[in-house]
Amino acid sequence: MLGYAFMGKAHSNALKKIAYMTWPPPLEPKLVGIAGRNKEAVEEAARRYGYEYATDEWRRLVDDESIGLFDNGGPNALHGEPTIAAARAGKHVICEKPLGRDANESWEIWQAVAETGVKHMCAFNYRFVPAVRLAREIVEAGELGEIRHFRARYLQDWGDDASLDTWRFSADAAGSGALGDLMAHVVDVARFLNGEPATVHGFTHTFLPGREVDDAAEAAVVFHNGSVGTLEATRFAHGRRNSLQWELNGTKGSLAFDVERMNELQVFRADGDRARGFKTVLVSEADHPFWEHWWPPGHIIGWGETFVHELHHLLDAIANDKDVAPYGATFEDGYRAAEICDAIARSGESGEREQVIYR
Amino acid sequence: MLGYAFMGKAHSNALKKIAYMTWPPPLEPKLVGIAGRNKEAVEEAARRYGYEYATDEWRRLVDDESIGLFDNGGPNALHGEPTIAAARAGKHVICEKPLGRDANESWEIWQAVAETGVKHMCAFNYRFVPAVRLAREIVEAGELGEIRHFRARYLQDWGDDASLDTWRFSADAAGSGALGDLMAHVVDVARFLNGEPATVHGFTHTFLPGREVDDAAEAAVVFHNGSVGTLEATRFAHGRRNSLQWELNGTKGSLAFDVERMNELQVFRADGDRARGFKTVLVSEADHPFWEHWWPPGHIIGWGETFVHELHHLLDAIANDKDVAPYGATFEDGYRAAEICDAIARSGESGEREQVIYR
Amino acid sequence: MLGYAFMGKAHSNALKKIAYMTWPPPLEPKLVGIAGRNKEAVEEAARRYGYEYATDEWRRLVDDESIGLFDNGGPNALHGEPTIAAARAGKHVICEKPLGRDANESWEIWQAVAETGVKHMCAFNYRFVPAVRLAREIVEAGELGEIRHFRARYLQDWGDDASLDTWRFSADAAGSGALGDLMAHVVDVARFLNGEPATVHGFTHTFLPGREVDDAAEAAVVFHNGSVGTLEATRFAHGRRNSLQWELNGTKGSLAFDVERMNELQVFRADGDRARGFKTVLVSEADHPFWEHWWPPGHIIGWGETFVHELHHLLDAIANDKDVAPYGATFEDGYRAAEICDAIARSGESGEREQVIYR
Amino acid sequence: MLGYAFMGKAHSNALKKIAYMTWPPPLEPKLVGIAGRNKEAVEEAARRYGYEYATDEWRRLVDDESIGLFDNGGPNALHGEPTIAAARAGKHVICEKPLGRDANESWEIWQAVAETGVKHMCAFNYRFVPAVRLAREIVEAGELGEIRHFRARYLQDWGDDASLDTWRFSADAAGSGALGDLMAHVVDVARFLNGEPATVHGFTHTFLPGREVDDAAEAAVVFHNGSVGTLEATRFAHGRRNSLQWELNGTKGSLAFDVERMNELQVFRADGDRARGFKTVLVSEADHPFWEHWWPPGHIIGWGETFVHELHHLLDAIANDKDVAPYGATFEDGYRAAEICDAIARSGESGEREQVIYR
Repeated sequence: MLGYAFMGKAHSNALKKIAYMTWPPPLEPKLVGIAGRNKEAVEEAARRYGYEYATDEWRRLVDDESIGLFDNGGPNALHGEPTIAAARAGKHVICEKPLGRDANESWEIWQAVAETGVKHMCAFNYRFVPAVRLAREIVEAGELGEIRHFRARYLQDWGDDASLDTWRFSADAAGSGALGDLMAHVVDVARFLNGEPATVHGFTHTFLPGREVDDAAEAAVVFHNGSVGTLEATRFAHGRRNSLQWELNGTKGSLAFDVERMNELQVFRADGDRARGFKTVLVSEADHPFWEHWWPPGHIIGWGETFVHELHHLLDAIANDKDVAPYGATFEDGYRAAEICDAIARSGESGEREQVIYR
Repeated sequence: MLGYAFMGKAHSNALKKIAYMTWPPPLEPKLVGIAGRNKEAVEEAARRYGYEYATDEWRRLVDDESIGLFDNGGPNALHGEPTIAAARAGKHVICEKPLGRDANESWEIWQAVAETGVKHMCAFNYRFVPAVRLAREIVEAGELGEIRHFRARYLQDWGDDASLDTWRFSADAAGSGALGDLMAHVVDVARFLNGEPATVHGFTHTFLPGREVDDAAEAAVVFHNGSVGTLEATRFAHGRRNSLQWELNGTKGSLAFDVERMNELQVFRADGDRARGFKTVLVSEADHPFWEHWWPPGHIIGWGETFVHELHHLLDAIANDKDVAPYGATFEDGYRAAEICDAIARSGESGEREQVIYR
Repeated sequence: MLGYAFMGKAHSNALKKIAYMTWPPPLEPKLVGIAGRNKEAVEEAARRYGYEYATDEWRRLVDDESIGLFDNGGPNALHGEPTIAAARAGKHVICEKPLGRDANESWEIWQAVAETGVKHMCAFNYRFVPAVRLAREIVEAGELGEIRHFRARYLQDWGDDASLDTWRFSADAAGSGALGDLMAHVVDVARFLNGEPATVHGFTHTFLPGREVDDAAEAAVVFHNGSVGTLEATRFAHGRRNSLQWELNGTKGSLAFDVERMNELQVFRADGDRARGFKTVLVSEADHPFWEHWWPPGHIIGWGETFVHELHHLLDAIANDKDVAPYGATFEDGYRAAEICDAIARSGESGEREQVIYR
Repeated sequence: MLGYAFMGKAHSNALKKIAYMTWPPPLEPKLVGIAGRNKEAVEEAARRYGYEYATDEWRRLVDDESIGLFDNGGPNALHGEPTIAAARAGKHVICEKPLGRDANESWEIWQAVAETGVKHMCAFNYRFVPAVRLAREIVEAGELGEIRHFRARYLQDWGDDASLDTWRFSADAAGSGALGDLMAHVVDVARFLNGEPATVHGFTHTFLPGREVDDAAEAAVVFHNGSVGTLEATRFAHGRRNSLQWELNGTKGSLAFDVERMNELQVFRADGDRARGFKTVLVSEADHPFWEHWWPPGHIIGWGETFVHELHHLLDAIANDKDVAPYGATFEDGYRAAEICDAIARSGESGEREQVIYR
């Protein structure tokens, strides 16, 4: 594990729970080593989560032959080199999003890792919300018909504070602001549910003078399947603490979602029922995605559980030599999300509609 | 009254209710004449609403010296000529939105009518929803601080039917589709609550082959006050029957609204209360806008009542020689909304960010 | 019309709208006379609503042979004598709820009026909310199966003010407090949707010292159809302005409703759909109850419109000699509601489960 | 641990998470032994959760001197004897609710255990929902003023199936049905937030012929603090999967909650704000109860986490010799809940209002 803060905690928790909540587990995770820059903090994290050792030198993890999976939850600037090194050392890898600080870096990480033949996963954990996977299954089954619209926005509200000091506001450490942090999730869920975007028209925006990264991003979008919509990401929406909202409209029905109520999926079926309307589906039934691991219906799960599903998916891919795609995001997906984010930023600079073109 | 269908019914109902629900009324409306192309239907409408006569020739209304207010609820193609003629005949005028079929026509109507010195109103009725007016008052009082975001969308779902025959799908009769019908409302509420947009990046889109007008419009927007957001309008969102949603985020709080729950305003105050969150405000208190006309708190009103407020506002302006602006929309507002809509369409054609420039 | 305040306004508005919103109307209402104790106020009301004359002596209305329908919207203590006199004078009658100040008075009013053979209606207007009628139709069609539960509560919040001076707090003028004012609505909707209660266990309660009437009522209930539930009414629920909520659970599905969102019905079908949940049905479709009078789908109506439906129903019964029951409430329904309310009060006094027994 | 099914899983998960999610933990749980009747199943549970051994004889746990905490998650009939034996062997004990199968058995368990001087906790886990604890803190701080109403209901929908075979339908194994399973939670949250009930009027009800236990319970209630309300529990409410709803109305404000949206608390303050209404508070801020263990604001937690908080509370009480009460429920609370449930059942049998009297 590289990183011991927010993502280090989320991933460590998941790895520990897989051993007994997903039963029998595809592989039983053993927490070997954890790396971080602050020696004292990383040592406490090792004690806390049960890693065998802590180190302030991530290369020790790369060199440790007993390690089979390298989990990178560090800041964006530390995604590339350690992940590539770990893959070259034959370890499977999972890396937090955004994969790189821009599309170029993301592409290079993907290419370098893909060459090694290891399993790779980009940690777009919202694919592993039961309601989001159920949505994907509904779309795949054709229950919405032809898709007309996809619209999404990821709203948070902690950015309007010039005194906040975090690597997330550093251009060098983060690459971008709301774009890589939030819009990357928006475009990944867009691709997951609705396929590839063809063009974007929009921009990024920075509200606070002197801030190095963008605070918000806005775009109109056309998808290859003919659907259209808007995409938004911001850290300046008071009252929206962690609100990733999306909606799909098809010729046969609609779906809507908000991660602040992540156990619920809104489902509309144009089925001619006289009593028609959006259903609030509590996604917690025995036949719902991922629910075999949890509780009786109606006993909801939390945001942290998305990582249990995600890492379980990866361990299953490793143990049984399955593909991470299409339900999990690979480094290719990480690159593609970055390409779309970059196209939005380019559109803002050029003032023109930008094609989304993958190398 | 010109027109006897949807808008003719809505306006006639309002004119009849003003006489006793807004007490004492600024002026007591007398329903003189109603015009429409279908002689039989317009005669029935006259009997139904109590107009003294019906006619299939709108010029008769223009020539009728007993008429003081000309209310144009006809199809878009009939907005210009009759309204201008009525104004030139010295009558005050109210015209349904969109004012003209495009910005040019709207500008010409505005100019011609403004020259005559009569009162003119463009019927953007959502300004007269109590919750929308309350929002305006909250913004004007500075309670949201500096505005960071405005986002809005008007979603309907009746357009996905190639067999539907209505003037709203005719390029000649309507000018545009979702753009003039729905996006015009979106941009008017944007201007009403957040001021003038500076640039738009987006496009209009037609889903059905052979349809003459647009089915949807999508845009990213920058406002002169420095706020940014997205704008959308569509007739292809299954399950959204008449859903005009908007949200404002400021440095001190946020507001959100959906016209399907038009009696409610969502209010967030960044006031440091440990128990913070969006309030669902039932806008029906004695000290809430327009509520002096209605019922005890909690006894909600309907969509039709917005026209009561709107026409009451106009009659008050006429009776007491007040300005229709800023709480009511004038023909200038009608023109400005059209200019923004046209800029979105131009952006789609040029692929470029378009400035919103008023003549 | 007897009464010119809250109910006088609501009924007068409805009578005026029927003439053109329900087209063609079964009868065209002509507003003849309005009576009230305050001579100045009732004269203003006559001017306002267009009554031909005002009077401070209700017997003038009874004696007026040109009057065919007597509408009693006065205080509870004035329900009996004028209504009976009007019926004996051959006029059809509608009387606000509660019919009398207790079950005995209600029974006497019903009996005296029934003897005359005129049409009679007790103004339980919530039967005329489109969502409530739709619920009734769903229940009647057997779509919920066998009913297991009915629970309802009517919550308001204006009672916690000892300085308020209104006839509603007078034992003599009102008979009871929340019981007759709010619980009467609860039990009428219970009977309308779920049939007759068999037993009640509960009580009434007065919070403020010196208040003559009850502030709240609480009960557990068993229905003849085997379903059970709770019933509640209060004027002491801060934040609930006018919230009549009810829920039905059957063997095949459930319905839920809140009059603060009166255009919506919550519908659950136990149909085995993998995506199951309560639908938020916006009751505004062309094939929904009462909607032929109104607007396109999604354009909601207000609380005042329930009276349009109610009085239209009565005029239709008069014009075409139809029964007011079962969709409208008769004086028998007014009596039965009072009997149930009295049983709750008796249960509180006796401490025992009380049978609901109609004379 | 006694029991390996639903509650065994929930408690084992919590004990494992405490070691690293609540950091530093008050005590580091070591999973020693797990007992259950099905030898194969309990052995698999031991492997799954990491218990050192499995046994089909719970006395082995009692006799094991290395065990300091006995956690009883078995069926109701197995609550008494093993728990008492464990306490007498000097082990601290936690027992699932209902404590006993009726008030008498609950009282005996409490008395026997209290005599030993060990720490004891009855697992009313909903006290450990952050929103419920926040509600308690708001009430304790007097922010609601004097309480007027408490109403609650626990609705589930799995009971309407005569073919279901579970110990929960056995009178001998369970003692009661919805009463002990669901109403016990209702009355515990009632006592936690609003204090002791004085009288109940109501009944239990069984819908299915031949079912040994009650399917639902209904009651009207008076509390010692002068507030009144209704209480309900049922397994027959289609569409309500796990819906524990409660509402408090006070002289200064109101609170409302539904465990299906357990991260949200509805808060109304009668503070004279022109924009007043219920706030939807996402209880996930750094200064909210229990949140120091979790994620950034807006990243919600699940039902399973309530057990982490609960067992953390107990371990803290053990480690630091603190009282379990008042924030945690003791066996006395378990007994009191049973006494209230029994009073509801008695009321149904006697047809009379029953006093709640604790021995």
